[in-house]
Amino acid sequence: MPPPVAARWRLVASYVVPIDPPGAVWAPGVVDVAGDRIAYAGPSEGAPAFDGPVRQLPGIVLPGMVNSHGHSPMTLLRGVGDGLRLERWLAEAIWPREARLTPDDVYWGMTLGAAELLRNGVTSTCETYFHDRALLDAAVDAGLRCVVTPGILDLPARGARWRWQAMLEAALGLVEEQQGRAGLVRVGLGPHAPYSLPDEALAAVGRAACEGDLLLSIHLAETRREVEALRAERGCSPVAHLAGLGVLDAPVLAAHGVWLEEAELTTLAERGVAVAHCPQSNAKLGSGCAPLAALLRAGVTVGLGTDGPASNDDLDLFEELRLAGLLARALAEDPSVVEAPALLSLATLGGARALRLPAGRLAEGQLADLVHLEAEDPRLVPILRPEEVPARLVWSAASHLVRDVWVGGRQVVRDGEVLGVDLGRARREVQARAERLRG
Amino acid sequence: MPPPVAARWRLVASYVVPIDPPGAVWAPGVVDVAGDRIAYAGPSEGAPAFDGPVRQLPGIVLPGMVNSHGHSPMTLLRGVGDGLRLERWLAEAIWPREARLTPDDVYWGMTLGAAELLRNGVTSTCETYFHDRALLDAAVDAGLRCVVTPGILDLPARGARWRWQAMLEAALGLVEEQQGRAGLVRVGLGPHAPYSLPDEALAAVGRAACEGDLLLSIHLAETRREVEALRAERGCSPVAHLAGLGVLDAPVLAAHGVWLEEAELTTLAERGVAVAHCPQSNAKLGSGCAPLAALLRAGVTVGLGTDGPASNDDLDLFEELRLAGLLARALAEDPSVVEAPALLSLATLGGARALRLPAGRLAEGQLADLVHLEAEDPRLVPILRPEEVPARLVWSAASHLVRDVWVGGRQVVRDGEVLGVDLGRARREVQARAERLRG
Ligand SMILES: [Zn+2]
Ligand SMILES: [Zn+2]
Repeated sequence: MPPPVAARWRLVASYVVPIDPPGAVWAPGVVDVAGDRIAYAGPSEGAPAFDGPVRQLPGIVLPGMVNSHGHSPMTLLRGVGDGLRLERWLAEAIWPREARLTPDDVYWGMTLGAAELLRNGVTSTCETYFHDRALLDAAVDAGLRCVVTPGILDLPARGARWRWQAMLEAALGLVEEQQGRAGLVRVGLGPHAPYSLPDEALAAVGRAACEGDLLLSIHLAETRREVEALRAERGCSPVAHLAGLGVLDAPVLAAHGVWLEEAELTTLAERGVAVAHCPQSNAKLGSGCAPLAALLRAGVTVGLGTDGPASNDDLDLFEELRLAGLLARALAEDPSVVEAPALLSLATLGGARALRLPAGRLAEGQLADLVHLEAEDPRLVPILRPEEVPARLVWSAASHLVRDVWVGGRQVVRDGEVLGVDLGRARREVQARAERLRG
Repeated sequence: MPPPVAARWRLVASYVVPIDPPGAVWAPGVVDVAGDRIAYAGPSEGAPAFDGPVRQLPGIVLPGMVNSHGHSPMTLLRGVGDGLRLERWLAEAIWPREARLTPDDVYWGMTLGAAELLRNGVTSTCETYFHDRALLDAAVDAGLRCVVTPGILDLPARGARWRWQAMLEAALGLVEEQQGRAGLVRVGLGPHAPYSLPDEALAAVGRAACEGDLLLSIHLAETRREVEALRAERGCSPVAHLAGLGVLDAPVLAAHGVWLEEAELTTLAERGVAVAHCPQSNAKLGSGCAPLAALLRAGVTVGLGTDGPASNDDLDLFEELRLAGLLARALAEDPSVVEAPALLSLATLGGARALRLPAGRLAEGQLADLVHLEAEDPRLVPILRPEEVPARLVWSAASHLVRDVWVGGRQVVRDGEVLGVDLGRARREVQARAERLRG
């Protein structure tokens, strides 16, 4: 377990990137932390007097990154089925193995995933998987903030054991059970996708999410084939399909959205549906590339997601934000279509909004989820003006520059070491369990 | 300067990836080094008896990566002009500053670039820039293998001082001068691009390259506009233009090739022209994405290039090979269009072939350019079978896993530290010189 939280402390860093307002950099800047919240954030000049403990940091401080779509216990299945398209990948490589998972498998898979996320500067993650208690235990033990949206699927034709009624019931049980739990945990609902659930299940999960005001995370418009099949069978778009079933009345976070069309983007913006953009997974599986520039123009809330490490194959939002920018610019043939501060915002504030967390920006009252990067690495040299820092973070930085991480005011990474995880054991457990699962 | 080379030594590593044959992994594997060459490489089982010094390495060994297109001294201009398209970026942000470069600027810019490249596992680079002696001095001092193709341009309309005749003459002088120099250096010719040189210059540089059997590195078909302009003015494709001027009779390495068409690919393959694929620079500048899968299908030799750190903004071939694969898969909507071993080969053997270096694969007689990565990082866990190693390297690894690097048998990076560069000084020099150049 990570060390306890000091009552009130201050950090002073050479560069502080608050994310909001976009492009702002305080050099030097101050963040005051009280318990699990930020009590003050701003330029050093003009900061209130403070006589508690002060931590001087030589590099760059920014809000912890937010992974808006993950299946991090899939470290157990890292790289499995490479070269297969999503449909065959799920049916042949992934689901048969996932059906054999035990809670302990998920605990260790998530432990390694949580260590990877924290080490890379990710402080919150939205996780849809199985054996959710074990998943949450692993996240909390590592000190990672976790919104879990328990997976709900129904595939009778494939002979799988999963039935939506039982999975929804279990998820709602977890919601109730976790209400009193530590501040790191939130529970929502994770209906897998329109193609893996009957209409009545989607409608029922949507109703439950509305009633409980629960985040509903769902895979949407991930592949061209899936969208074409839905249009052929139902004569409507994926977004219209969910709207017709009442699902969009709930607080929805739609993952992927690769094949969303212009009219659907408008609906998403109007209905307050957020999108988790997962460029690396979408590209690696050959699914395509979501229309990031159009999503932002339409006013949709966009976060970035790693998806699972089986289709990525790592858990690194520095990679995702750079890839998101590169893909948007290459496809638009326009280098001005998305700028560095906007990309940095996707990985922080965009994700926090998508997850409905008071995080992703440095301001009074926000969660004290913070990342400190060294600025001495050759990659970041030179920095001529503070305003260049967002561009360095987006186009040159890499996750190994992360030195320290705090979640809810508690230090969980110190000088690159994840404090709450026995990495040697996690590695051995994942290796051994992966051997059994793939066997 | 790096330490001296032991006469003959052996390394034994848990995983050795020879690149050729594609997909092969020796676990464990052996590489014997004699002077600057590999004397033997193969699985430990069956290796010849050896009684010299043996170095046991717990991780993964592969050939040093080869950067087939760089302007590494542009660390001085890292990130300059972000958001501009290539044409305006060159004319407004880059060339005016480059016209003010001194040899010492280039020395320090290249020193920082060389440190970044070596630290990231790159052992050879093809550099086209200015003040080439200073560039070579920096590369040799750092211990980096360098094929320099001195930049040749001619822009009288822009009022720049550059004139092609003088630049070609200087380049040929450098060829002669460097013939007796240390084994790390080769010199070729670097005519900038069809749009920055008159026809007679391209033809003259081509003839000189033929006569001297010199590598001719040139920017080709980088932007849609450039190709459209050439077609409008000359009525032919970029490749036909160069062929018509006799340039393709020389050993040519064409950078970018974003807008090459199918017929041009056939010509490139037939004429033995190699292509340096620079996906990150092309995407960041909004130039587009080269047709990697089609290039490989056509049988063209393809290497990977970082281009300069002003348009990248780092010097990291792990990023380039992953991005190359992701872009190819996303655009083809097919995850089988390019596999991990082929991507790893682009960054090693493909680049070495493009640069005409006996490197990029582990076999007797090849240059002893070697990289050792740790395999304990969470990103690489689990590894269930040795054959998975190439996929881990392509989809999960990152440059910070590089622990040790040898160039020509000489250790230049030890436990992540670049031995031949005073990084503190390089940082300060680049920072100060960048301030002057941008100021
Ligand atoms: Zn997913
Ligand atoms: Zn270039």
